[in-house]
Amino acid sequence: MNIRILAVGSELLTPFFQDTDSFYLTRRLNDLGLDVAEKGVVGDEFENLISAIRRSLECADLVFITGGLGPTDDDRTREAVSSVLGRPLELHEDIVRAIEARFLRRGKIMPALNRKQADVIRGAVVLANAEGTAPGQWVEAEGKIIVLLPGPPVELQSICETQVWPRLAAGKKGYLARKTLKTSGLTESEIEELIGGLYPRDPGRRLTVLASPGQIELHVSAFSSASESEALEKAEALALELRRRLGPAVYSDDGADLETAVGRLLAARNETVAVAESCTGGLVSRRLTRVPGSSAYFLEGFVTYSNKAKTTRLGVPAETIESFGAVSPETADAMARGVRRAAVADYGLAVTGIAGPSGGTAAKPVGLVYCAIADAAGVRVERNLFLGDRSRVQDQAAQKVLDMLRRTVEEKAVQ
Amino acid sequence: MNIRILAVGSELLTPFFQDTDSFYLTRRLNDLGLDVAEKGVVGDEFENLISAIRRSLECADLVFITGGLGPTDDDRTREAVSSVLGRPLELHEDIVRAIEARFLRRGKIMPALNRKQADVIRGAVVLANAEGTAPGQWVEAEGKIIVLLPGPPVELQSICETQVWPRLAAGKKGYLARKTLKTSGLTESEIEELIGGLYPRDPGRRLTVLASPGQIELHVSAFSSASESEALEKAEALALELRRRLGPAVYSDDGADLETAVGRLLAARNETVAVAESCTGGLVSRRLTRVPGSSAYFLEGFVTYSNKAKTTRLGVPAETIESFGAVSPETADAMARGVRRAAVADYGLAVTGIAGPSGGTAAKPVGLVYCAIADAAGVRVERNLFLGDRSRVQDQAAQKVLDMLRRTVEEKAVQ
Repeated sequence: MNIRILAVGSELLTPFFQDTDSFYLTRRLNDLGLDVAEKGVVGDEFENLISAIRRSLECADLVFITGGLGPTDDDRTREAVSSVLGRPLELHEDIVRAIEARFLRRGKIMPALNRKQADVIRGAVVLANAEGTAPGQWVEAEGKIIVLLPGPPVELQSICETQVWPRLAAGKKGYLARKTLKTSGLTESEIEELIGGLYPRDPGRRLTVLASPGQIELHVSAFSSASESEALEKAEALALELRRRLGPAVYSDDGADLETAVGRLLAARNETVAVAESCTGGLVSRRLTRVPGSSAYFLEGFVTYSNKAKTTRLGVPAETIESFGAVSPETADAMARGVRRAAVADYGLAVTGIAGPSGGTAAKPVGLVYCAIADAAGVRVERNLFLGDRSRVQDQAAQKVLDMLRRTVEEKAVQ
Repeated sequence: MNIRILAVGSELLTPFFQDTDSFYLTRRLNDLGLDVAEKGVVGDEFENLISAIRRSLECADLVFITGGLGPTDDDRTREAVSSVLGRPLELHEDIVRAIEARFLRRGKIMPALNRKQADVIRGAVVLANAEGTAPGQWVEAEGKIIVLLPGPPVELQSICETQVWPRLAAGKKGYLARKTLKTSGLTESEIEELIGGLYPRDPGRRLTVLASPGQIELHVSAFSSASESEALEKAEALALELRRRLGPAVYSDDGADLETAVGRLLAARNETVAVAESCTGGLVSRRLTRVPGSSAYFLEGFVTYSNKAKTTRLGVPAETIESFGAVSPETADAMARGVRRAAVADYGLAVTGIAGPSGGTAAKPVGLVYCAIADAAGVRVERNLFLGDRSRVQDQAAQKVLDMLRRTVEEKAVQ
């Protein structure tokens, strides 16, 4: 079944508003094992609206049209669908009375404008709106289904839950299961090489790779017309093989982000961490403490921006900074040891680097970042050269040092 | 000019990801006086992609296609456009070399997969990508313009700023001016009451109020077919009146965020700040240090999650914590004084509270946060009760303490 969603409203074509109804519709359609093939946004201009509806109907079996059912002049979805289908609008007096009653309950008289909300496309099933004035409409024509829904999320969702999903579920054809693997430490192409050949060829399974700086997600979905458990089994079989190929790069398979995965590892082992940051300016501490319950393992963080702070708070020898510079493996090493000692933590993390835009030199360019982890066994320092602007360098550096912590704790866990 | 945006990517048809590139494109097109007629999202399946591109080209003069330019099997935008236009793809060896060089800079060898990113539609202008591997493409065909852009926002935006907008600006028809006022400390309804009656009635001007937790933005736009200066004048006249009504709640009128506005104030006065955080876990330091050049005024940050850290690092008397609790005006006061003294800063900021989800009591519920600022004149502590989950409480607390700093420095500046 080819499903499309068309959101109507000129405000949705400005930079300030987004169509959120389609997220709800997609999620609930997925629950029924149905995928959305395409979605779109069109403004209120009548010709554009007509053209968009016509083009959606060309390819789709089921089209949701959201918005444009209000009482004002620029609400013309009813008219447009009526014109595209060549079916007249008919005024339903019982809807007029329901809208009047709704106004009366708030002590108001229905404005004449609202009468047009009672216009129904000939042959449509009226979908009653308990939360607002404009009812939805379910139209079947030329073997296709067109569902008109009001834009306000509360109204749209209430109509869908009571009248749309039950209708669709009656004719439902399958189940969809999803699995998400999150990885860090590999580039998109390294991942592609490792998983090459695993892209499913059968139409019932799908694998999508999604890259963002320092983190790549693999989304697996599987469809079964037979049962939910079959769909889940198919998704899990693929996820398992992906995990095997990607090894320790995978840090979660249940949607957890890196700081949550790290937190679980530390909490399970009853271990603690403290953080010393220079160029990431608190981002590492901030990410660790975003996680509910992080006070169980996060002891303390230092944002030692100045050299003096590095010396005073972390005990980095002034000579180390003088001889090697604040951005050096030696300083990173001393920061990691220092913060571990100062906070009496199991792990000490340190980041020092040049986030830019200024401060870079030929020998130490913008993007050069040393990440270090200290534990009872000693210190490991890694040199990184991150690309991008200040915020991208900071993001990648934080991701990197959290991943060093994650891998260190994981390795211990398997020993 | 009929403009369409088509975002490509199956992940954008799930409930988990949204197309944000179209917001950026819309905003920058609006800056050129151009409106977007329609936008859409289509998945990676080749037939759907072809069909969506074909339908976009039917009605549009200018189509932006974002995403699907990566190196993997499911990145097929180049192929699809080539097929719709009936123009072959040609491998550009110079692009291959540029991608190889990019990998080499990170000490890596380009995987063979990435070669396909050098495929160019015959006759297209290559739009160089300084931030990633896939270049954009500008194709003119059948009197229409098709612009292919990589999906990652950093890459897309860098290509647009350097190569797309300059090309489009050459043929532009009108002028749009924007002004954004950012405020903090007032609720949306307080703002609505203060600015009531200022909503412009003429079609050439627009005022939009955009609320997010702890911060409300007012977007003013004005259009002129005559000149840029007329558009700017119309926008500025409205912005000026809004500023007058909103007073010190406005912290920027040029798009600067709160940490940038605060940074400018501190830098101008040659003053410094240090931060002690408990429940915000580094967020305040992180926000201050996001700003390029923040090392001029940001001295140091402490994430004193544990009581011991509050005592050891900031000199908060153990009796204060014992008598009043870690979340108390007394502790906030001592933290602000302590961090100011320890870092020898002009301003000391402190945040202590209960971000949740656990840790709340009847007397000290989740959302209770004390924010404090210490300067030469003394300490001011404010009690807040923020609504929302952990991350909303943290966000609002950081916003609040940064706003206290902003107002304190501003008040001094006018004295």
